[in-house]
Amino acid sequence: MVEVVIGGTKSARQGYSFDQVAIAPQRRTRDASEVSTNWNIDAYKFATPLIAAPMDSVVSPQSAVTISRNGVLAVLNLEGLWGRYEDPTIYLREIANVSQDQATSLLQRLYSDKPVDHELIKNRITQLKESGITVSVAVSPQRTAELAPIAASSGAEILVIRGTTVSAEHVAASGEPLNLKSFIHELDIPVIVGGCATAQAALHLMRTGAAGVLVGFGGGSSHTTSEVLGVRVPMATAIADVASARRDYLDESGGRYVHVIADGSMGNSGDIVKAFACGADAAMIGSVLSRGTDSPGGGTHWGSEAWHATLPRGERHQMKQVGTLDQILNGPATTGDGTMNLVGALRKAMATTGYSDLKEFQRIEMIVS
Amino acid sequence: MVEVVIGGTKSARQGYSFDQVAIAPQRRTRDASEVSTNWNIDAYKFATPLIAAPMDSVVSPQSAVTISRNGVLAVLNLEGLWGRYEDPTIYLREIANVSQDQATSLLQRLYSDKPVDHELIKNRITQLKESGITVSVAVSPQRTAELAPIAASSGAEILVIRGTTVSAEHVAASGEPLNLKSFIHELDIPVIVGGCATAQAALHLMRTGAAGVLVGFGGGSSHTTSEVLGVRVPMATAIADVASARRDYLDESGGRYVHVIADGSMGNSGDIVKAFACGADAAMIGSVLSRGTDSPGGGTHWGSEAWHATLPRGERHQMKQVGTLDQILNGPATTGDGTMNLVGALRKAMATTGYSDLKEFQRIEMIVS
Amino acid sequence: MVEVVIGGTKSARQGYSFDQVAIAPQRRTRDASEVSTNWNIDAYKFATPLIAAPMDSVVSPQSAVTISRNGVLAVLNLEGLWGRYEDPTIYLREIANVSQDQATSLLQRLYSDKPVDHELIKNRITQLKESGITVSVAVSPQRTAELAPIAASSGAEILVIRGTTVSAEHVAASGEPLNLKSFIHELDIPVIVGGCATAQAALHLMRTGAAGVLVGFGGGSSHTTSEVLGVRVPMATAIADVASARRDYLDESGGRYVHVIADGSMGNSGDIVKAFACGADAAMIGSVLSRGTDSPGGGTHWGSEAWHATLPRGERHQMKQVGTLDQILNGPATTGDGTMNLVGALRKAMATTGYSDLKEFQRIEMIVS
Amino acid sequence: MVEVVIGGTKSARQGYSFDQVAIAPQRRTRDASEVSTNWNIDAYKFATPLIAAPMDSVVSPQSAVTISRNGVLAVLNLEGLWGRYEDPTIYLREIANVSQDQATSLLQRLYSDKPVDHELIKNRITQLKESGITVSVAVSPQRTAELAPIAASSGAEILVIRGTTVSAEHVAASGEPLNLKSFIHELDIPVIVGGCATAQAALHLMRTGAAGVLVGFGGGSSHTTSEVLGVRVPMATAIADVASARRDYLDESGGRYVHVIADGSMGNSGDIVKAFACGADAAMIGSVLSRGTDSPGGGTHWGSEAWHATLPRGERHQMKQVGTLDQILNGPATTGDGTMNLVGALRKAMATTGYSDLKEFQRIEMIVS
Repeated sequence: MVEVVIGGTKSARQGYSFDQVAIAPQRRTRDASEVSTNWNIDAYKFATPLIAAPMDSVVSPQSAVTISRNGVLAVLNLEGLWGRYEDPTIYLREIANVSQDQATSLLQRLYSDKPVDHELIKNRITQLKESGITVSVAVSPQRTAELAPIAASSGAEILVIRGTTVSAEHVAASGEPLNLKSFIHELDIPVIVGGCATAQAALHLMRTGAAGVLVGFGGGSSHTTSEVLGVRVPMATAIADVASARRDYLDESGGRYVHVIADGSMGNSGDIVKAFACGADAAMIGSVLSRGTDSPGGGTHWGSEAWHATLPRGERHQMKQVGTLDQILNGPATTGDGTMNLVGALRKAMATTGYSDLKEFQRIEMIVS
Repeated sequence: MVEVVIGGTKSARQGYSFDQVAIAPQRRTRDASEVSTNWNIDAYKFATPLIAAPMDSVVSPQSAVTISRNGVLAVLNLEGLWGRYEDPTIYLREIANVSQDQATSLLQRLYSDKPVDHELIKNRITQLKESGITVSVAVSPQRTAELAPIAASSGAEILVIRGTTVSAEHVAASGEPLNLKSFIHELDIPVIVGGCATAQAALHLMRTGAAGVLVGFGGGSSHTTSEVLGVRVPMATAIADVASARRDYLDESGGRYVHVIADGSMGNSGDIVKAFACGADAAMIGSVLSRGTDSPGGGTHWGSEAWHATLPRGERHQMKQVGTLDQILNGPATTGDGTMNLVGALRKAMATTGYSDLKEFQRIEMIVS
Repeated sequence: MVEVVIGGTKSARQGYSFDQVAIAPQRRTRDASEVSTNWNIDAYKFATPLIAAPMDSVVSPQSAVTISRNGVLAVLNLEGLWGRYEDPTIYLREIANVSQDQATSLLQRLYSDKPVDHELIKNRITQLKESGITVSVAVSPQRTAELAPIAASSGAEILVIRGTTVSAEHVAASGEPLNLKSFIHELDIPVIVGGCATAQAALHLMRTGAAGVLVGFGGGSSHTTSEVLGVRVPMATAIADVASARRDYLDESGGRYVHVIADGSMGNSGDIVKAFACGADAAMIGSVLSRGTDSPGGGTHWGSEAWHATLPRGERHQMKQVGTLDQILNGPATTGDGTMNLVGALRKAMATTGYSDLKEFQRIEMIVS
Repeated sequence: MVEVVIGGTKSARQGYSFDQVAIAPQRRTRDASEVSTNWNIDAYKFATPLIAAPMDSVVSPQSAVTISRNGVLAVLNLEGLWGRYEDPTIYLREIANVSQDQATSLLQRLYSDKPVDHELIKNRITQLKESGITVSVAVSPQRTAELAPIAASSGAEILVIRGTTVSAEHVAASGEPLNLKSFIHELDIPVIVGGCATAQAALHLMRTGAAGVLVGFGGGSSHTTSEVLGVRVPMATAIADVASARRDYLDESGGRYVHVIADGSMGNSGDIVKAFACGADAAMIGSVLSRGTDSPGGGTHWGSEAWHATLPRGERHQMKQVGTLDQILNGPATTGDGTMNLVGALRKAMATTGYSDLKEFQRIEMIVS
C-alpha cells in the first residue's frame, strides 16, 4: 500500500485500474486444452468462473438458460422488470428504442409504476427451476429482509445481495437495520454479497458468513458513481486488496475460503483475465453480455443505478451487438477486440502464460504501464 | 508535500486534480436520511454547504431567491450586469445567442459601455433584502474600498471579495493599496475572500480577519488562467493545503475557525463531494448552476475573467440545460451524470461511506489513480 | 526493476512504452554520412538492421525483392496466402476491399479454406532463391516440426519461428511437444525465434541455440492481444530487459551473442530509433511497410493473429499509403511524420546524437516523459 | 535529476513538458504596471524578452518592422525564401493555399529550385537596417562559414546559428568542420546558437563564446522530431537543466552570463510564462506569431525542418488567425485562450505572483500535475 500526499496532511493511497495493468508471459507455455477453468462455490460446480450480472439487459428467464448452457451462472434480478411485470418484453423494447435524452426518465417511470410482485417472483423462480439450471437470484440490501425468504422458500439455490456499496454495519434511520450475519446464518442457501472495494469492508462482509463477496461497484460501462458520488476504487487494486482480506480471513476463520468475485469494469476478455490475475475467484460480467443478439437489452445496457427515482447514477448505453450469447461466451469469435469467446480468451491467456488452473494463475507476474 | 525535480536545481511540488482522486467506501454505511449537511458561517445557518458563485450566468436578483429557497447561499456580483444596467435581460439574451467568435468582444463591450452604478447597487441590495433571503454580494479587490461600504450600509449581510488571485499584501503602482486587515476589521459584516491556492497565501488571508477564504481561481469550466497566465494549482491539492493552513491558524489564533471554501473546477456532484473530502467546509459552484433552465445565462456560462478589457482569461461556454435550479440542487435528477440533485448526491456519498456530518467526512480515506 | 504495489500483496513492475521514452542529443553531432547501420547475423550481412515482418500485407515473393534491394531482410510467411494459393492476388485484393465489419470473417475463411501446401512452399523458396536475395521464411511454433525441414531442404537461409508467445518449454496436450533446443541444433540454418517479452523467457530461448530472439508480441497496430488476453509488455521495457538477458547469456555461454530483435509496435521511424536506443540489434517492422503503394496489402494491414479460427486477436487495418517501398525505406521522404525514409531517419538520429555505429548507440541517454 | 529504470540495466531520466507544470501565486500580488519585462543582450536593449523565430511564416522584412515596433527582436532566416527569391510573395501565397497532402512536396521544391543568393542577402540586411530596427539574421550551422561573414559585413547586429541540434563538436565527413569557438571569437557581432536540450550540450555551446543558447529543437507545433528521429526533451526540464549550466558556466568563466533562450513548444502565453519560470532569459516564439492577420504565413506555419529534401521533420500547419501582430504581442486581446497580448499576459503573470523583474521570477514556486 503506497501512500501519496495530496496536500497538507491529507494522504491517499495509489490505485490501479485494469487499463493500467497487464499480464506478462513467462518462460513456459501450454496448450489451451491443458487448462482448467472449473469453478466451485459451495456445492455448485461450473465449467467457467463467470457470472452473468443481475441486470435486465443481460439476464431474463430465457437468456438465463442460454447462459447456463455455456457453463456460466446466471443471476436474475428479482427487483427488475421480470419481478414487476408479467411480460416485460414490450418495455424492454421501449427502453432499447427510446432516445438517449429520454432514457433515464423512462427507466425511472417503468421501475416505479409497477411494484415488485411477490407472487410473480415465486413464479419466476419456479420457471427457472423447471428449466434445469442452477437458480440464482439477486435482491438489493434494502429489500433483502422482505424478498430473500420468498426466494429461498421458492427454490432459489444461490442468493446474491447486491448494491452499489453494501456494508456489514448499516446504520438505518428508522427501525432495525438488516443484521447480515444473523440473516445469512438463518438462510439455508449460500449468499454472495457486495459491492465493496477495500480490504477492511470485505473482511467485515466475509465475517457475515457470505460464500462470496462482490468487489467493485458494478458496471464500469453503465454506472457513473464516480461523477455523481466521487466514489471510485480502481478495480485492479480493489481486487488485489480484497484477495488479501480473503487470506486474512482464511487464517482468522480457521479455513473458511470466501470467494472473491470481481464485479464490473470488465469491458473485454482482457479485463476478465486481469481480474483473475489480480486474485479474483470469479467474475460477474454485464456489459460484455449485453452485446448478444439474443440478450434481453436488444443492443442497450443499463444497471439498477440508472433507474433510481431521485439520484440515478448510471445511464442506458448503446452497445454494439457482436454475435449470439453462445459465441460471446464460448466462440467462435468473429471479432478481434475481446468482445467474443470470453472463455476461450481466458483459457488462451492461461495457456500462453503457462498456467493450468485459476488458483495458480492468481500468482502471475504483472506489469504496470 | 512531495517535491519532484523538473531539471537542474528547479524543483516543484506534485499536485492532484479532482479527476485524479476519489473517495472509497469503508466498512459502515448509513441511510442518507441520517446525514446532516448543515453549514454555519458567522451567524448565518444554511441547510447545505453550497454557495452560488457571483457570476451573471448564475446569480441574478431572481435566481438568488430560487437558489436560497434550496438552502444555498447566493452571491450577486455588484460589478456584473445587474450593477450596471437597470434591466440587463436583453443583454443576457444577447450574450446567450452571440456566436462563439464574437462572444469575448461582446462581453468586453457590454461590461465597459456602462460603469457600475452606486445607486443601482443600493437598489439591488434592497431588492434582495425584501425577498427575505440572506443577502450576499461580491466585489473585486480593486473596487472593494469603493463598493464594499455602500454594500454594507445598504444591508448586505455577507461580503465576498473575489478575484482570480487575492493576496493580503498587494503592491500598488500609485496611492495606498487596500489594507485588507484594517478594512475587514472596520467593516461590520463577515467577509469571504479569495482566490488563493497555497497554504502560505491562505494563512495570510486568514490573518486579515476573513470569515472564509476561497480556494482556487474560480471557474474550472469558464476560465483559462492556465493557458493565459501559466497559473494552475490542482484543486484537490489546493484544498488540502489550505485546510492545513486552517488548522495552523486555528492554533495560532487561539481558536478562530476560518472556513475553507472550494471555488471552481467542480463540474459535477462527484467533484463537490471530493472538495469536502479534501477538507473544504463549503463549495462555491458556478458552471453546474448555469445548466438550469431558469438560470440567467440561458444555457451559457462565463466569469468575470472573460470580460477583461485587454487580457480576457476566460470564455463564454455553451452549457447543456438539464432541468430547473430546484432539480439541480435538490432533485429529483433525470440525468445520471452528476449534473442534478447535487445536495442529494452529497448526502448519498456521505451515507455510502458511513459519515453523518461534514466535519467528520473531511477525514475520509481517499484514492489516487 | 521497479516494483509497485497494485494492492494487498500483489505487486507489479513498472513498464514503459515507446511513447513514454525518447532520446536526447548530447554534446557531439556528426554528419549522417559518417554513420554505419550495418548489421550481420550469422554469416549474413545487411546494409540496414531492419527486417520485414512475415505478414501477407507486407512480404510477397515480389515485395521481398524490392525490400531486399533496400538492404533489408524480408521474411515470407510459409503459412500465409502464398503458402496456400497458387496465385493469391485476387484474395489480397478482396481483403483490401472488404468492409471493416466483414474483414475478420473473410480472413478466417480465406486462411482455413485452403491448407498449407508443401509443394507450393518449395516452389516459393525456389522462386525467392532465383531472385538472388537472402531467403528467409517464417513458420508458427505449432507447425515448425512439419514445415521447417521442408524449408531448410528447399534452400531457405534463415528460419523465423514466430508466434504471439513462444517459449522454450511448451506443455502440449497430446504427443511430444517441439523440443526447440534439439530441433535448432539439428537444423543447419540459423533460427530466429519469438516473441517473448521478459528477460527470463528470452534467456530460455537464447539457450535453445537461436541466432536471434524476437521481442514483443508482433504488430502494435494490427494486434489486440491486450484487449483479448490481457497480455501487454510495454516495448521499451521489454527490449531493455531482453538486452540484459543477452548480456547474461553472453557470459553464461562464454561468448555467444544472440541478436535481440524488436518485433512490433514501431509505427514510425522515431519508434524504430527508440528500439535501438533501448538495446535492440535489429527491428522487425510490419505496419510501416504496409503503407507502400507497392505493398501486397494494397493499403491494408493484418497479422496472423487476425485470422485465428476461434479467437482472433487482431484486425485488418486501413493504412494510409505514402509512397513506394523504396521511398519508405531509403527515401526521399515526402511526408514529415516518420513514415518515410526509415533508414535515413535512423542514420540522422545517430548522427544528431553523435554516434557512429549501432552497438554504441544502444548506450545513448534516454528521457522518460 | 531523477533516474527511472526502463528495463534491465537501462535507465532514463524523468522529464517534464510545459503541459505538466504550472506556476502558483504566492502571498503577495502586485499591479501589472509595477512589473518590468526589460531584456538586454550584449549592447542591445528590448522592452520585452521575446524573439520572433527565423521562420518564413513569421518574419519577413515587413513583419520584422511591425514586430520590432512591439519591443520584440525579429530574426530573418537568410536561407529562407527572402534569401532566395527577389519577391517571394507569390510563393508564400502558394504555400498558404496548397492542400495538406501536397504541402511538403511544394516546400521541398520551392526551397531547392532557387539557391540562396549572396547579393540578395546583402540587400535584405540593408533593407532591415534602413527600417531602423535591430538587425538580426539566422543561418544554419551547415552554412554558417559561408553566410555569416556576409551578414556581419553587411550590417547584421545579432547572428543566430540555428539548427535542430547544434553541437560544439561536429564530426564532419569531409573537410574541416566549423570550429564554433574560433569562428565566434573572430566574428565581431554577438552570436546566439542552438538548439540544445541538455546541460552538458549547453555548457559546451556556452564555452564557444556565444551570447545566448537556444534551448529546445524549435517549433513545438511545426516539427515532428519526435516521430521521425525519436528525439524529444520535454521543455520545462530542458530549460531548467540549461539554466543550471548557465550558473555552472558563470562560475567557470568568472562571470560571463550566457542567455538561456527557450525555443519552441510555446503555443500560448501560459507556456511563455512557464519558460521564464523554469529559468529562461528570453523566449523565441514562432507559431503564436504565425496567427497574425499580417503575418507572412497567411494563416499557415512551417519551419525549416519541413522543407528538408530527403527527410523532412515537420509539416506546414494551418493556424487560426486571431488579430494583428500588434494585438498578439501587446493586445488588447479579443480571445481568452492565451493567443493574444502575450506581453500583457507575461506582465500579469508576474504581477499576480508578486514579482517585479524576470530574474526574480525565475525563482517562482512551481507545481507538477
